[in-house]
Amino acid sequence: MSSKKVISGKEVAVHNNRESCWIIVHGKVYDVTDFLDDHPGGSKIILKYAGKDATQEYEPIHPPDAITTHLAPEKCLGSVEPDTALKIEVKVSDLEKQRLERVARRPPLSEVLNLHDFEAIAKLVMPEKAWAYYSSAADDEITNRENHTAYHRVWFRPRIMIDVTKVDWSTKILGHHTSMPIYITATALGKLGHPDGELNFTRAAANHNIIQMIPTLASCSFDELVDAAQPGQVQFLQLYVNTNRDVTKRIVQHAERRGIKGLFITVDAPQLGRREKDMRQKFEADDPSEVKNAGESDSVDRSQGAARAISSFIDPGLQWSDIPWFKKITKMPLILKGVQRWEDALKAYDLGLTGVVLSNHGGRQLDFAPSGLEVLVEVVEQLGKKRGLKFPNEKFQLFVDGGVRRATDVIKAVALGATAVGIGRPFLYAHSAYGQEGVEHGLQILQDEFQMNLRLIGANTIKDISRDMVDASGLGSHVVSVPGDRLYDSNYESMQHAQLRELKAKL
Amino acid sequence: MSSKKVISGKEVAVHNNRESCWIIVHGKVYDVTDFLDDHPGGSKIILKYAGKDATQEYEPIHPPDAITTHLAPEKCLGSVEPDTALKIEVKVSDLEKQRLERVARRPPLSEVLNLHDFEAIAKLVMPEKAWAYYSSAADDEITNRENHTAYHRVWFRPRIMIDVTKVDWSTKILGHHTSMPIYITATALGKLGHPDGELNFTRAAANHNIIQMIPTLASCSFDELVDAAQPGQVQFLQLYVNTNRDVTKRIVQHAERRGIKGLFITVDAPQLGRREKDMRQKFEADDPSEVKNAGESDSVDRSQGAARAISSFIDPGLQWSDIPWFKKITKMPLILKGVQRWEDALKAYDLGLTGVVLSNHGGRQLDFAPSGLEVLVEVVEQLGKKRGLKFPNEKFQLFVDGGVRRATDVIKAVALGATAVGIGRPFLYAHSAYGQEGVEHGLQILQDEFQMNLRLIGANTIKDISRDMVDASGLGSHVVSVPGDRLYDSNYESMQHAQLRELKAKL
Amino acid sequence: MSSKKVISGKEVAVHNNRESCWIIVHGKVYDVTDFLDDHPGGSKIILKYAGKDATQEYEPIHPPDAITTHLAPEKCLGSVEPDTALKIEVKVSDLEKQRLERVARRPPLSEVLNLHDFEAIAKLVMPEKAWAYYSSAADDEITNRENHTAYHRVWFRPRIMIDVTKVDWSTKILGHHTSMPIYITATALGKLGHPDGELNFTRAAANHNIIQMIPTLASCSFDELVDAAQPGQVQFLQLYVNTNRDVTKRIVQHAERRGIKGLFITVDAPQLGRREKDMRQKFEADDPSEVKNAGESDSVDRSQGAARAISSFIDPGLQWSDIPWFKKITKMPLILKGVQRWEDALKAYDLGLTGVVLSNHGGRQLDFAPSGLEVLVEVVEQLGKKRGLKFPNEKFQLFVDGGVRRATDVIKAVALGATAVGIGRPFLYAHSAYGQEGVEHGLQILQDEFQMNLRLIGANTIKDISRDMVDASGLGSHVVSVPGDRLYDSNYESMQHAQLRELKAKL
Amino acid sequence: MSSKKVISGKEVAVHNNRESCWIIVHGKVYDVTDFLDDHPGGSKIILKYAGKDATQEYEPIHPPDAITTHLAPEKCLGSVEPDTALKIEVKVSDLEKQRLERVARRPPLSEVLNLHDFEAIAKLVMPEKAWAYYSSAADDEITNRENHTAYHRVWFRPRIMIDVTKVDWSTKILGHHTSMPIYITATALGKLGHPDGELNFTRAAANHNIIQMIPTLASCSFDELVDAAQPGQVQFLQLYVNTNRDVTKRIVQHAERRGIKGLFITVDAPQLGRREKDMRQKFEADDPSEVKNAGESDSVDRSQGAARAISSFIDPGLQWSDIPWFKKITKMPLILKGVQRWEDALKAYDLGLTGVVLSNHGGRQLDFAPSGLEVLVEVVEQLGKKRGLKFPNEKFQLFVDGGVRRATDVIKAVALGATAVGIGRPFLYAHSAYGQEGVEHGLQILQDEFQMNLRLIGANTIKDISRDMVDASGLGSHVVSVPGDRLYDSNYESMQHAQLRELKAKL
Repeated sequence: MSSKKVISGKEVAVHNNRESCWIIVHGKVYDVTDFLDDHPGGSKIILKYAGKDATQEYEPIHPPDAITTHLAPEKCLGSVEPDTALKIEVKVSDLEKQRLERVARRPPLSEVLNLHDFEAIAKLVMPEKAWAYYSSAADDEITNRENHTAYHRVWFRPRIMIDVTKVDWSTKILGHHTSMPIYITATALGKLGHPDGELNFTRAAANHNIIQMIPTLASCSFDELVDAAQPGQVQFLQLYVNTNRDVTKRIVQHAERRGIKGLFITVDAPQLGRREKDMRQKFEADDPSEVKNAGESDSVDRSQGAARAISSFIDPGLQWSDIPWFKKITKMPLILKGVQRWEDALKAYDLGLTGVVLSNHGGRQLDFAPSGLEVLVEVVEQLGKKRGLKFPNEKFQLFVDGGVRRATDVIKAVALGATAVGIGRPFLYAHSAYGQEGVEHGLQILQDEFQMNLRLIGANTIKDISRDMVDASGLGSHVVSVPGDRLYDSNYESMQHAQLRELKAKL
Repeated sequence: MSSKKVISGKEVAVHNNRESCWIIVHGKVYDVTDFLDDHPGGSKIILKYAGKDATQEYEPIHPPDAITTHLAPEKCLGSVEPDTALKIEVKVSDLEKQRLERVARRPPLSEVLNLHDFEAIAKLVMPEKAWAYYSSAADDEITNRENHTAYHRVWFRPRIMIDVTKVDWSTKILGHHTSMPIYITATALGKLGHPDGELNFTRAAANHNIIQMIPTLASCSFDELVDAAQPGQVQFLQLYVNTNRDVTKRIVQHAERRGIKGLFITVDAPQLGRREKDMRQKFEADDPSEVKNAGESDSVDRSQGAARAISSFIDPGLQWSDIPWFKKITKMPLILKGVQRWEDALKAYDLGLTGVVLSNHGGRQLDFAPSGLEVLVEVVEQLGKKRGLKFPNEKFQLFVDGGVRRATDVIKAVALGATAVGIGRPFLYAHSAYGQEGVEHGLQILQDEFQMNLRLIGANTIKDISRDMVDASGLGSHVVSVPGDRLYDSNYESMQHAQLRELKAKL
Repeated sequence: MSSKKVISGKEVAVHNNRESCWIIVHGKVYDVTDFLDDHPGGSKIILKYAGKDATQEYEPIHPPDAITTHLAPEKCLGSVEPDTALKIEVKVSDLEKQRLERVARRPPLSEVLNLHDFEAIAKLVMPEKAWAYYSSAADDEITNRENHTAYHRVWFRPRIMIDVTKVDWSTKILGHHTSMPIYITATALGKLGHPDGELNFTRAAANHNIIQMIPTLASCSFDELVDAAQPGQVQFLQLYVNTNRDVTKRIVQHAERRGIKGLFITVDAPQLGRREKDMRQKFEADDPSEVKNAGESDSVDRSQGAARAISSFIDPGLQWSDIPWFKKITKMPLILKGVQRWEDALKAYDLGLTGVVLSNHGGRQLDFAPSGLEVLVEVVEQLGKKRGLKFPNEKFQLFVDGGVRRATDVIKAVALGATAVGIGRPFLYAHSAYGQEGVEHGLQILQDEFQMNLRLIGANTIKDISRDMVDASGLGSHVVSVPGDRLYDSNYESMQHAQLRELKAKL
Repeated sequence: MSSKKVISGKEVAVHNNRESCWIIVHGKVYDVTDFLDDHPGGSKIILKYAGKDATQEYEPIHPPDAITTHLAPEKCLGSVEPDTALKIEVKVSDLEKQRLERVARRPPLSEVLNLHDFEAIAKLVMPEKAWAYYSSAADDEITNRENHTAYHRVWFRPRIMIDVTKVDWSTKILGHHTSMPIYITATALGKLGHPDGELNFTRAAANHNIIQMIPTLASCSFDELVDAAQPGQVQFLQLYVNTNRDVTKRIVQHAERRGIKGLFITVDAPQLGRREKDMRQKFEADDPSEVKNAGESDSVDRSQGAARAISSFIDPGLQWSDIPWFKKITKMPLILKGVQRWEDALKAYDLGLTGVVLSNHGGRQLDFAPSGLEVLVEVVEQLGKKRGLKFPNEKFQLFVDGGVRRATDVIKAVALGATAVGIGRPFLYAHSAYGQEGVEHGLQILQDEFQMNLRLIGANTIKDISRDMVDASGLGSHVVSVPGDRLYDSNYESMQHAQLRELKAKL
């Protein structure tokens, strides 16, 4: 068959099982029978659409070219005859109706006063699936929350009586100007939250002179996002390294040709993390009729999960000896994203890389991995001792990401030696709730906070933010309280304030 | 037009827009068209009263002379014809009625046992706007609460078997007698909480022989507050330095002439902080009809906010080199209010100032600024090391403010080297709930607590409170717990006490 | 008039005011007009019974001889004519009826498994006034709870493979045998909780071979409590020192004559603490008709409070130079109760006293006084360094009290150097809920716990409990967490466990 | 009478009291009159079944041979005549019906994502008695929870850029292969949770190549559990040492003959702990008609408890000098289970034992005993210093148990020097909720987690897990917060997020 052939929906509908599985995406008919076991998301979800139109499900979680990239051309069997495709009837559930009502009741952006607010609104207005995917993290989500908590263990030592009439919080990242020491870091599947996907970030970043890091797993295609950039707008690329290095080479060299200014190689995800909140949501979303009986084992799904882990998509074999190859295939600055101990930062420096992102993947990979902020302190100390480096450093730049919600968080990281800080989830929530405009409002909030707080710590520019402006002596302490004495505590009767007359009469 | 002219309300009503904006205050008609963009509180609130009588809104948040100070004389167009002024009809809302009922049910002062109680009552009986303004602080309000929390990290080491039949907790501040080592510190907009405004503090301070620090942003005029003082009553002045130094010079020299005994120059507010709780309340109070559509950007308000930040009202350019000028224009003792690190306290000492207030503006400016109490310890240690000073010190006095609720808090600060402690919000709450009498009751509670606790730590006078009477070894630790294990914790079933028979039968 | 005179209730009723105030107690008529201002509990409560029979109110909070001790003989005017006395009609309130129902539903003692349980039951079944008096503590009750909390910062280092077939937890206190290293410490006003008052402790102590410390402020008279002792039963006396040393001398020498084996002089209460929970309860119990108008000042009550503070009842002038006098008037071992720093323990040792109780009066005096357990560590360390003492020490014995609920708490204190531990509130709660039998059950629980835990730490006797059996390295840390990030925390969505089918269907 | 005699239920029913007490178990009639006071569970429970068939109560908490082991052969009086035995009619209570409904609604195993989930389900679906027995721990259950909490004070220092395509988490315990560095540790009374009892563990362990430690107090008989093992399947034995060493010798030598590969002698339980949650449940389960009157003392039960403590069942006299005897009677490797300080681990090493389990019996014995994880660190440090040992060590193996819920917990213990980790309660909950299949699912979860997390910390095998991969610097800190300031805290008004329109309208 040729891809120009027109096929009736009725014919497609026959191929609705594991033995012969056709699906329709964007009007084309594909034979995915052989691909079922290679699908990173598992075969189950494809089989649900076997013989049917899967476009609506496919759209938000794949870039448009995903299917043609992964399937041989001959697997495209042709076009479906218009209006004949079998669709899964999606009834708008009561829960969905309630959600849409909440969308209509979003407060105006002027009432969104800080980045926390976006998350509060987004939790209420975005599809549950998107919320589960964006907000989930590994295991007990300790590291996920620690990322934010770590900032609360660092305090300021502000200077006074400095002329702060003029303050300027712009700086440079890898030599490129940015209006703030932050960048929009790579996060996957942007269309889950908003139909425009990562384009919202591209456009908002342009308007605020901020750098966007394009994710490998974007919902939009790489070229769409580059095409949407303004002239001169700087973009980086986050890279998952494929087992097939040719695929990776093609991606990297294409990116360089398209003008990408920095390559951030993810090194903290040899296997994609299990995120139980996300998994839990999937069970709940399952069609109840498919639910297995209690006690039935799930050996198939399990092995499927294991299969995914060694899929070619992310190479668990990526190692230090691969670095020279990367230097050979591209002139872009190379940065490792996901460094979690000073020894590895030192190795990266010694291998001539341009920098490292001290990151734990937003707490989505290894639980109890330390926060980037805490690693930052040890990296600065040890690379100072062992290589005489001072930070922030133009030749070897340190970045951190995870848990940032305030300009003061960023200022703390800068004081401790970071060049800039990556922010991810807050912008995901902003665009899920308000689209591009939400992202811009979020950036404006940060601008306002930077102006305010630079003045208040007594710094005129980013360079004036010095190490002695913070007290990070408590940063390394990981306090977990001794379990409480429940019997004693429940006996203790809290003190009461003086009360209004009437309240007392009620007693 | 002359200011003696009588103008009908009808005529005033015509000038109700940005192009021509007249308002009525205290029976006078003012043309504020050109002033709109200079108003520290923004143009929006003035425009709401354009063409109308704004007295009721103006009153609690401006001293009576504010308008004549800021407007050229010719902007006063005359008097409004009696009973013709257009007023905004303020309907007493249900919420307001409920509040007034709560006012009627305030418990008698005898039931107010501590300073915490005032806050509990005030929260219920004061206008929401006042509560939001007084209670709010910067960003996540961490520093605001840390100010109080810090006192809980200092413990006593009491002495016994001292003859404490007679105890005397009076002392001197800048050479002036005070019945307790505290003063009423400067807080703005007193009339928001009580119609008598800061006069409540002046009168209560007189009756208890306490020093009041008059705020630049008082609701009452400076002269009113000085006029209300008893003969010999000591008052200080808190100063925001104006970009126009002539304005500042006039204020300072006037204060000196009126007998002010100390000038406390605020140095922790080059820009007034964003207090989100206060901002949130304003949105809620907004006329619903004016609310923008969801998603609409608010660039106007933002830029307005930025304009305010560089208004002439508070000069962000104030710097160390300004100090000699202050010494030239006044003989009053000069104290910097808002010092937050020992290096700056040392600089103040070396420049010959009389003291510093270790303060973070009640947590209303930079979040994560350290508590005054913690800075006190480093200042005493470093100025001891570097300049051989011992504290409390008559020549260079240290004050702290923020978070104080108990006489024991004050005693801790004194033991650590402070001359005295400023108390602000508790008295605001006391006067909001009970007026002058509330403030006096609050002062009496402190007197009782001082008597009790001086005896209990084994000190006869303030001078007997020695450094070894406190253990401040934990003061510097900033503990933030590792995030909890929610799955484990929710599985844990609390132990239960033995239960009454009936309760068990219900199970 | 002679005390033998019979007076009609009608005549008594006339003397019902401040100018002439008679009251009836236990059938006798007393003229208390001149005594009104000297009454430690204030004049108000007496005036409530002016002209009436006050026995019921008097009984639980005074020893029977209190009135004859404090009044000159001629103030007893005679006996009241039977059945004519005016009584305050006490209606059994609904709340009281509910309480009595709860009393009937007390669980059997066999269900009371630990000392915590007594408190849980007592809180429900005892009169609110008693609960407020017993449970209240100073200021914010931080020290009160810290007393218990401190034990939770000490951990065991148990030894194994010790033959613990036989374990013996008896020991000696001041040379006297006791079945456990605890004693029942002095607590006031036992009849508030149970009509037999402190007799419950005397009798229970006898049955368990435990030492009772008789309080100065017992509801029972001293002689009653001594008379109730079994032959050979050891009792101590807690002493408040009177301004009139003759009164004190009389009490001390009488006690010695009656066989008291140790005199515990209270040194942490130069003035009785303000306990706000107790004060709060009193307001609530007040007759509503007497309540003042909101805002009315209470200068009279306040000054009355101050008057009490300098009453002769407890001498705030007690000092180190008084010690020789005590040694002159008695041969009983002298122990200071309420030592709170090692310097004072050292002084007590150097003055030849027999020991000290490291105590903060159950947290009822100075808030933020350290726990006895923590002071114990510094005392052992410093007296070891400076005087070469080892603890537990027979010549100079250390005791602690406050916060003990488990035998493991006691074992910790013993390991750290204490001879024994005083327990107060738990026995108050036990006797309030179950009388003498409750106290005995509480003692039996401790016996069981001692047997168990001695075995489990690997000690055969109290002497085998060595310093290395505990890890007290965290005892000195006073952690107060940095205030939480409320916006972040409320956004965080807790992880959920797998759920039962039905529960999910409800979503 | 001979044991072959047939006895009518009617005749048995006559012997229904303390003087003559017969019971029926599995169709046999036993005279237990003389045994009443020796029954480890007390006489009360037997007397409840005096003259009746006790099989149903007996079954889940005794191995089948318990009764013949403990009674002389002549006490078996014969068989009961079929269908004549008097049974206690057990009505299915409403609570039980509700429980059975919950059992029917268990989620499928595929929704159980982690070991926590089993506990959540088991709490809902297992009999209350079983839950109380399994979940309870000593005193205030501080150590019980600390066991888990301790793991949260250890953080990872993951390595990146390691080729982790292949990861292998199998290892050896006492020389025997295991698919993971864990074993199923001994827990008592498995039939309380599931009718198959410990057989579930035997079978699941076989399928996952895991070692099971058989408990002395199994519900199944030792031989049943050994018989159920697959050829080559490795089992250990946990041993309570009997006062009668002949009994112990018989058990040990029988175990060795049956192929047991390691003998774990319990040394932390010279007396079985008081577990109040379990005791509380028993009171609640009691027949209400038997409940004593409030206040009635329980001296009988108490003394019974004491009797149990010195029963022959567990010898409190076990001591170091017994070790040579054990070495004489068996060649099995000897491991002490319940070591809680390094000094005792050193002694075990010096005596030539094969290893120690650093354990506190799941927090069921001494409260405030340290977690095994914390003891592990001191043991590794001190045995390194004093004997030059490095860990993990094949000659002297260290194990820990208690509180483990995640593979990351196990990896932490291994990094700190443990050979393997024992897991108990999670498998009890898994089998209570889902039987053998549940246990296997739990093991599979761990397998998945090991694969994931080995990759994420950058280790290919268990041997690659090095000490520098964890930061345990906070492990030794036992933080208990200073009690909170309730008045201040309740005054503080939390910040609020931006809200949906409607929500605001409701205010």
